[in-house]
Amino acid sequence: MRWVRYEADARVAYGLVEGEEVAEVRGDPFEGYERTAARRPLASVRLLVPVMPRTFYAAGLNYAEHVMAVANRRGEAPKLPKAADIGYRGVNGLIAHGETIVIPADASERVQYEAELVVVIGRKAKHLSEAEALSCVLGYTIGNDLSERSWQASDRTLWRAKCCDTFKPMGPWIETDFDLGAAQTIVRLNGEETLRFRTHRMVFGVAAFISRMSRYMTLYPGDVIWMGTEGTSENLKHGDTVEIEITGIGVLRNPVVRVNA
Amino acid sequence: MRWVRYEADARVAYGLVEGEEVAEVRGDPFEGYERTAARRPLASVRLLVPVMPRTFYAAGLNYAEHVMAVANRRGEAPKLPKAADIGYRGVNGLIAHGETIVIPADASERVQYEAELVVVIGRKAKHLSEAEALSCVLGYTIGNDLSERSWQASDRTLWRAKCCDTFKPMGPWIETDFDLGAAQTIVRLNGEETLRFRTHRMVFGVAAFISRMSRYMTLYPGDVIWMGTEGTSENLKHGDTVEIEITGIGVLRNPVVRVNA
Repeated sequence: MRWVRYEADARVAYGLVEGEEVAEVRGDPFEGYERTAARRPLASVRLLVPVMPRTFYAAGLNYAEHVMAVANRRGEAPKLPKAADIGYRGVNGLIAHGETIVIPADASERVQYEAELVVVIGRKAKHLSEAEALSCVLGYTIGNDLSERSWQASDRTLWRAKCCDTFKPMGPWIETDFDLGAAQTIVRLNGEETLRFRTHRMVFGVAAFISRMSRYMTLYPGDVIWMGTEGTSENLKHGDTVEIEITGIGVLRNPVVRVNA
Repeated sequence: MRWVRYEADARVAYGLVEGEEVAEVRGDPFEGYERTAARRPLASVRLLVPVMPRTFYAAGLNYAEHVMAVANRRGEAPKLPKAADIGYRGVNGLIAHGETIVIPADASERVQYEAELVVVIGRKAKHLSEAEALSCVLGYTIGNDLSERSWQASDRTLWRAKCCDTFKPMGPWIETDFDLGAAQTIVRLNGEETLRFRTHRMVFGVAAFISRMSRYMTLYPGDVIWMGTEGTSENLKHGDTVEIEITGIGVLRNPVVRVNA
């Protein structure tokens, strides 16, 4: 199933994508739902962020080549994370598929995309083994973990490097039937492919993160876990369009503007 | 005004504390409210976390002696933060006044309190100058930023050091009329005072944080900002009761248990 959250006729609803249509439901995929008779062309609705998370988790460094690239940038020896230690992002940064990434006037040129698989938690969970871990997952969506590299280097935390308003595109929907082992993540900048990697080749996988997190922390319906990115990224500039595809999920596309100084 | 969120008769409501009573309202302090005729003894209701934040911000190092204490613990030279760079905590960790702090079996002995002023945002805000910053604040409450020091030293992020379930007591209520300049923060462990400091003597004050954060990030009603702690803390052990008072707000008191290994 493919869950969208959308606005139509001045109302917000969840629906199921079926071909080129959306079938509206009463309720939501977390607390329960029933189908309604309402159907709309998918192209006619405004997609929203598929879930406003209760807590917004992010793995950060979780792909080997990206760890090397970051170390190179810092002039340090690359060091793979020793454990699945999760981090945090701000809900303020979330925007939907199609919405505009706005680069602040005082950001450097080095505002870069990061293409990430996003895990959406579907039910309350604690103390899950790795074998059980995926049982609390509703499905998967796509995230763009935009990062301003000069602030990432200068600041004590990642707040404005990663969490400026509009710096966290997420969508277009939540796919519940997803074959992670077969998936590829592809980035296109203005239509041209700039990055492609096997989505599952993480340092710590989805089950490893969920199991370790749930040892200490209750996971709640609607929590999201962003799984990190691979390789290196390009700078984004005014007028660009950045598109992240994860095969089997869909495409998250966002235009970019930069505020005039 | 003193806002409580509470459960009574199997319903959750906001109310105003008036003497030893709670006057129930319809609505909430963020979206609007009206008084009802219902009044209950304050002692008869179960207090809840006064707000479930949309984003849970935390200043971290923000008092000079605490910065020195942390540096001593690490064997490093103390370094005051150069800017008001905000961090994040997980909503899963929140518990109310009176609820029990549960120390996981595998935590070290060094689970310590941190007594913090908490700012509660009342209205959507962006691009506030320092002079305007406090206009978006609804009021203030108290937070206990519990920290497991061995995980804080070993892990790549603060996830389990700071965000284990029950590690973020917050309450007992939101005080809207608060004189920060006159306030003292006092910690009592099993009734004995272990720490006292002037609440306002922060490295970066409330207005400085809000103004800087709002330059890049929209603040939303219900967001909370934990302002950091002063000095050093004691270890908490099974059977302890830890109490944080901020004069002019109230007392946040929580019992401690440790899970058997």
